[in-house]
Amino acid sequence: MSQAIGRTCWAIAEGYIPAYSNGPEPQFISHETVCILNAGDQDAHVEITIYYSDREPVGAYKITVPARRTKHIRFNDLKDPEPIPHDTDFASVIQSDTPIVVQHTRLDSRQAENALLSTIAYAHN
Amino acid sequence: MSQAIGRTCWAIAEGYIPAYSNGPEPQFISHETVCILNAGDQDAHVEITIYYSDREPVGAYKITVPARRTKHIRFNDLKDPEPIPHDTDFASVIQSDTPIVVQHTRLDSRQAENALLSTIAYAHN
Amino acid sequence: MSQAIGRTCWAIAEGYIPAYSNGPEPQFISHETVCILNAGDQDAHVEITIYYSDREPVGAYKITVPARRTKHIRFNDLKDPEPIPHDTDFASVIQSDTPIVVQHTRLDSRQAENALLSTIAYAHN
Amino acid sequence: MSQAIGRTCWAIAEGYIPAYSNGPEPQFISHETVCILNAGDQDAHVEITIYYSDREPVGAYKITVPARRTKHIRFNDLKDPEPIPHDTDFASVIQSDTPIVVQHTRLDSRQAENALLSTIAYAHN
Repeated sequence: MSQAIGRTCWAIAEGYIPAYSNGPEPQFISHETVCILNAGDQDAHVEITIYYSDREPVGAYKITVPARRTKHIRFNDLKDPEPIPHDTDFASVIQSDTPIVVQHTRLDSRQAENALLSTIAYAHN
Repeated sequence: MSQAIGRTCWAIAEGYIPAYSNGPEPQFISHETVCILNAGDQDAHVEITIYYSDREPVGAYKITVPARRTKHIRFNDLKDPEPIPHDTDFASVIQSDTPIVVQHTRLDSRQAENALLSTIAYAHN
Repeated sequence: MSQAIGRTCWAIAEGYIPAYSNGPEPQFISHETVCILNAGDQDAHVEITIYYSDREPVGAYKITVPARRTKHIRFNDLKDPEPIPHDTDFASVIQSDTPIVVQHTRLDSRQAENALLSTIAYAHN
Repeated sequence: MSQAIGRTCWAIAEGYIPAYSNGPEPQFISHETVCILNAGDQDAHVEITIYYSDREPVGAYKITVPARRTKHIRFNDLKDPEPIPHDTDFASVIQSDTPIVVQHTRLDSRQAENALLSTIAYAHN
């Protein structure tokens, strides 16, 4: 039996999908990623809400992370209820019905050489 | 109704605005950013104090982050009570009257290819 | 006598070994690293479990970090029970019988200029 | 009166001073930095201990961060009791007699374009 690790509510205050890219696809498409680990024995039903600077939040984007699995989700790929615009500041809240661990990573390939950032998200509950 | 997430006092020990930049503006202006998420239903009245290595702290810089909004604030853009000098080490404390989440990001474009860093801030209260 | 610092269970939701590299070896081999500090006076017996998106977890990879030592372990170098595939999303859980501190770093040298990311891991227990 | 923010014991599991650099000095010297904020009204007497993979810890390196000041200390510049070797894995523990906030940053300029990483340190006490 696997151990449930983490929290059920996380927040990422930084969010930004660069407007363009350089390099071979799909690895070098500029992307903003939320990495989720579900180390427990129950599937995690995850809801992501996107916050903007100038309009009401959008969501929830629904994702299932199966038991004992990780999913690295590109914000670029979220489509329902609507895609996230590029070159626009946003933030996100990630809620789950079972404990998960959340980390935030960006690959920025707007210029010829890519840049990376990553941080653990803020663990709320 | 939205959920208030986070803390009311945060600190960022690293701060540095690179002295120059390469690439198209405003995206590739070298910048140091504090990303604030207010996921709650009350406007957040935020006060930022800047600490230096060789003189007394300066502030408070006052910012309102409306309910259910995010603001990504470039330290470069803070003007009142005074602009933050470039190529100078600083640190910051971010206080709010309602819970917020704070993340720190730098884009450094002094050289031809940009570099990025990011981290969750230190959550004090 | 040295002080035991940290926790006994950590998680890193992000994991990815780039598929190729540029630059002199071994420093510029693209790598994903877990940095472990054992500041205490007892050897730490560490077990790493790797989580994937599409199959059951693999492990434990066993490592000893001696008392008052640090080890920076490249995921690239883990071989037993099996190597970690490149260009594949993973996550990891790091468990120890005595408190340790865990940090996650990547050097990506797929393009001519290297990129870096780092974050403290999630401290569970 | 200023508010004391932070903890009195921090750890950074990652540490590595690149062996060489590119670009104008001193900004583009490859460096590993510990950023310390003392937001309180008492001077902070800070002791840094360096941990290695293959020998006993070295220290304490002693630094004073005055009240209401920040210091961004390059590990490269620590000399007493001995300099930290380059191209060598290390880790650090930072202890203070009054609360401080600690963040870890690296600028790696071994290649033509610099790379950056940063993370909040692990807050122990």
